[in-house]
Amino acid sequence: MSPPPSTPALSVGLIGFGAFGRLIARHLAPHLRVLAHDPFVAADAFGPDAVPADLATAAACPVVILATPVPALRAVARALAPHLRPGALVADVGSVKVVPAAILREELPAHAEILATHPLFGPQSARDGIRGLKLAACPVRGRGGLRAAAFLRRLLGLEVILTTPEAHDREMAVVQGLTHLVAKVLVRMEPLPARMTTRSFERIMEAVGMVRHYAPEVFAAIERQNPFAPQVRRRFLALAAELEAELDADRSVAPRLALVR
Amino acid sequence: MSPPPSTPALSVGLIGFGAFGRLIARHLAPHLRVLAHDPFVAADAFGPDAVPADLATAAACPVVILATPVPALRAVARALAPHLRPGALVADVGSVKVVPAAILREELPAHAEILATHPLFGPQSARDGIRGLKLAACPVRGRGGLRAAAFLRRLLGLEVILTTPEAHDREMAVVQGLTHLVAKVLVRMEPLPARMTTRSFERIMEAVGMVRHYAPEVFAAIERQNPFAPQVRRRFLALAAELEAELDADRSVAPRLALVR
Repeated sequence: MSPPPSTPALSVGLIGFGAFGRLIARHLAPHLRVLAHDPFVAADAFGPDAVPADLATAAACPVVILATPVPALRAVARALAPHLRPGALVADVGSVKVVPAAILREELPAHAEILATHPLFGPQSARDGIRGLKLAACPVRGRGGLRAAAFLRRLLGLEVILTTPEAHDREMAVVQGLTHLVAKVLVRMEPLPARMTTRSFERIMEAVGMVRHYAPEVFAAIERQNPFAPQVRRRFLALAAELEAELDADRSVAPRLALVR
Repeated sequence: MSPPPSTPALSVGLIGFGAFGRLIARHLAPHLRVLAHDPFVAADAFGPDAVPADLATAAACPVVILATPVPALRAVARALAPHLRPGALVADVGSVKVVPAAILREELPAHAEILATHPLFGPQSARDGIRGLKLAACPVRGRGGLRAAAFLRRLLGLEVILTTPEAHDREMAVVQGLTHLVAKVLVRMEPLPARMTTRSFERIMEAVGMVRHYAPEVFAAIERQNPFAPQVRRRFLALAAELEAELDADRSVAPRLALVR
């Protein structure tokens, strides 16, 4: 990573300074000036990577990133809309894209460009850096999104996957919807075996470890704000029940402990 | 690994030369003379690691390893019983232990020592060697099992976990029962997303890749021959259904596309 220039060329407004907002600030700070707004964070708690700013100031940057929970997105978009400068690029980072893209299209002025994004990683998987990690990007309005995608690819080393909100949500209903479903169920089954384990079970438990500490809002967004998630979960459960029925059906090979005693 | 001695001190009989039998022969050959018996394998197909032998010859070795599917175990044990030499050690390698331990205790003569084992790996996870991999070992009868466990630890570098058939099957009902259940369901949902993926989903798909090509008998043994597997699967399915009901219950935050259109 190159050293932070003393006077970065561009300012970026960052609305929301939770776990993911901090991660964004850490990786953008070497390249851009980050003006962060979060009414729930004390002014002295923004750390070295971001300058605290009021909503109007953060929203007046040429690029504005919304790192807020999906359910708060409409209120946030509505609040910052009047402060956006002409041609500003607004990007969100939510785990679903159909609903946020629709909200931003509705709430932001027509002159604002929109890039709906989903970084396919969290603070856990980004622990050793973000180079090579994936980010889904949906250009919703204007050409600024493509330039931002090129920036993320070139300067941050992200693998940027251009897609549409619908294609994204269809895939994520499987990728995230099922991962989080399986993980939540396994956590509810704890304590789980930790020593007598197979490599394949260990992989699954690594996945559980990566997602178990996500904020409840992220789980809610993945399972409830993705319009395709319910049908994917139901298909998974139906196939599991079908397999269970198959295993039940052929009892001829079931263990007969009475016979082997 | 030390070079193969020209005249190994000890012969081991290997009954069954399927995928796992071959793996055993490959790793024992540098240390022991492997006499392999498998009526379904042509004499010229045993490769450099094993010498083909008839059942009586293989069964007359001081150590006899049964690498046969669990449902075939009783017939195999019955067939080799008359040929066992006094004090021979017989070990199986099945994915479950309660049923095989009971079968071997019943079918083998009282003078034979018994070690029920479960190598917690398959040809897939052993691709890069078996050093450091885990093996569950249940000494069922006699002290020879403990000496064999020490051999596996010292010469092959395995992590040998001493346990009982019941403790083993209880843990494996989770470790293998759930891994294979989830993997089978995901395989039935294919095609699955391959590019727009998260690290956690990739871990789960790695687990799927490790177990998807297991022989159907292994899946059957894991799910049907483990007396604890059905209750663990049912608990998993019940918790998943419970989570689904919770997600369904609070519809207040569900995506209302009509409202955001």
